[in-house]
Amino acid sequence: MRFGCVDFQIQKPCDNTQARAGVITTSHGAFLTPAFMPVGTGGTVKAMTTDELDDIGYGCILANTYHLHLRPGHDLIERLGGIHRFMNWNKSILTDSGGYQVFSLAPLREIIPEGVLFRSHLDGQVLKLTPRFAIDIQKSLGTDIMMQLDVCVRHPADESAVEEGVTLSARWGKECLAVARDLDASLFGIVQGGMKKELRRRSVELTVESGFDGYAIGGLSVGESGELMREMVAFTSGLMPYDKVRYLMGVGTPSELVFAVSMGVDIFDCVLPTRNGRNGHLFTWKGDIRIKQSRYREDKDPLDPDCGCYTCRNYSRAYLRHLFVTGEILSSRLNTIHNLFFYHELMKTMREAIINGNFHLFMKQFSILKR
Amino acid sequence: MRFGCVDFQIQKPCDNTQARAGVITTSHGAFLTPAFMPVGTGGTVKAMTTDELDDIGYGCILANTYHLHLRPGHDLIERLGGIHRFMNWNKSILTDSGGYQVFSLAPLREIIPEGVLFRSHLDGQVLKLTPRFAIDIQKSLGTDIMMQLDVCVRHPADESAVEEGVTLSARWGKECLAVARDLDASLFGIVQGGMKKELRRRSVELTVESGFDGYAIGGLSVGESGELMREMVAFTSGLMPYDKVRYLMGVGTPSELVFAVSMGVDIFDCVLPTRNGRNGHLFTWKGDIRIKQSRYREDKDPLDPDCGCYTCRNYSRAYLRHLFVTGEILSSRLNTIHNLFFYHELMKTMREAIINGNFHLFMKQFSILKR
Repeated sequence: MRFGCVDFQIQKPCDNTQARAGVITTSHGAFLTPAFMPVGTGGTVKAMTTDELDDIGYGCILANTYHLHLRPGHDLIERLGGIHRFMNWNKSILTDSGGYQVFSLAPLREIIPEGVLFRSHLDGQVLKLTPRFAIDIQKSLGTDIMMQLDVCVRHPADESAVEEGVTLSARWGKECLAVARDLDASLFGIVQGGMKKELRRRSVELTVESGFDGYAIGGLSVGESGELMREMVAFTSGLMPYDKVRYLMGVGTPSELVFAVSMGVDIFDCVLPTRNGRNGHLFTWKGDIRIKQSRYREDKDPLDPDCGCYTCRNYSRAYLRHLFVTGEILSSRLNTIHNLFFYHELMKTMREAIINGNFHLFMKQFSILKR
Repeated sequence: MRFGCVDFQIQKPCDNTQARAGVITTSHGAFLTPAFMPVGTGGTVKAMTTDELDDIGYGCILANTYHLHLRPGHDLIERLGGIHRFMNWNKSILTDSGGYQVFSLAPLREIIPEGVLFRSHLDGQVLKLTPRFAIDIQKSLGTDIMMQLDVCVRHPADESAVEEGVTLSARWGKECLAVARDLDASLFGIVQGGMKKELRRRSVELTVESGFDGYAIGGLSVGESGELMREMVAFTSGLMPYDKVRYLMGVGTPSELVFAVSMGVDIFDCVLPTRNGRNGHLFTWKGDIRIKQSRYREDKDPLDPDCGCYTCRNYSRAYLRHLFVTGEILSSRLNTIHNLFFYHELMKTMREAIINGNFHLFMKQFSILKR
């Protein structure tokens, strides 16, 4: 395998759904799919050390090109030996292209043919992101999996805006690919198309014809209903190449992950487990817990007696509530550990179910649990 | 040894200074002196897990009666099995009596003969702390070493106020001791007396005649100069019983600790390493580092190449600066780990020097380093 080249093998397809168990290998090791990638926005998964991520079992995390470009600067990270060394993480890293953050964070975004102009949300400086620059940044970071620059459109949007997003994303994808191929780097394309099936189909066709190393479903979780999102995931995933990684960007809740896995999606990223952890919203197999609630004031039990995470092995709900109410840093730490452990367990459980041929039964049980 | 009884043995006195190396044993294990105790205000040493404190080598931490009484309530902690279990710390805990926080935090404090009236800094409720109640709270927490309720006076103050503080502290100390003896608990007395030697002497006499298990120097770091503080430490420590633990409360900087150890003080607590860590002020043997400074922007080195802490073994100054500038939780974590490691190393180094008979040389070297 050449440096920077990502390999994907499907180990076992599900007999009853589109789900598949696989393995992704990069120059920083292999990780099993379906996989969730914790979000390390600014070169750190908030409140966690990389050793703690490793202990839980994560093999790939996501870092944000937009954030790292602004602070501390991708050139600085390159001079310091790359993002892995900078943040002390020796496993795989996927970086987005910055397109989504420009869309969601920047106070101004102007799409021009050669790229996107935006104002930094930090100091108001006007900056330009082009397909070549997006790859250059990711190259400087030394990421294992790069994402193309794309145009994300909010929902609802004019059909013409969605169409323009599809066309530009496809064109920019080709430009990114040309640069990445010169660098011998692995690059994933991104499918857009809003909530229109015909545009999603066209976007898949235009993206796939470029020949990326993997394919992402972008432009979801942008204001649409959960039902519409699921419909788009099911439709889009089914059109994507079978033997390439399918990546659903920025999604989602445990139920959404289970659904998307059943539709053949392999990898995910989302701030939900980390952000919700810091906000005291905790995921368990028996339902969600808002640790702030006074019902937990004297609760000696762990968040989930069956959970094997560091938090559940050592701390009571009463203590976690106390830490949250008093605003302690340890609250963010212990809650994040628990939620990331839960997300990892969820993916691992789905993977085992796929391999054991009972993923459809797992789905049924899971939907009962969620009721 | 009866439950709750603290034992102190001097293992080696220094030949050239008043310093001594010793060992304190409580029902939660032994720890070596001179010792620094990290401050776990509200049942957590800020940004740290107890495992991390253990890894560094700490054997005793301090918790605050005032804070835990207000939130989550000492009665609640008692019902949950005590403070050790609540915060997942199996080693020793010393609790203050709340007297200092009433002095430093409460928006209103009125000394009355039977105790002190104060307003909670959280909700403005007027509460009363008496000698008996201070012990009852500490008993509920299940602490290993209790502190008597005392009257802390700021500097400068009228001599009459300082005198009243000495008299009341002594009387309250006797009352606390009567309650503690009934409970078979270990209690330390606190010497006050402001910046007047004759009042310090009287306070030592009144406190020692009660027969506590150990003695603390209180009422310092309350607005006086560093020089005056050192003078008071030297004077007061010399008057205290040789064979009992001497505890300098709320102090201090590395230099202050070295000086106080040379004057025969055994244990210390201070928020400095933890609070400064969160503020990006880091201690090293080669001088202090303000990690925010732009000179560290591209600095590949660890904070201290000779330091064995988790932070220095894994992260560069450039990364630590980035985390601090971007306000990441990991910044507080890594900085706190480093500072607490430094404080522990400082105490360990002093202890070894005392045992090896070269503490006076260590002091000389240390004062050169600090220049």
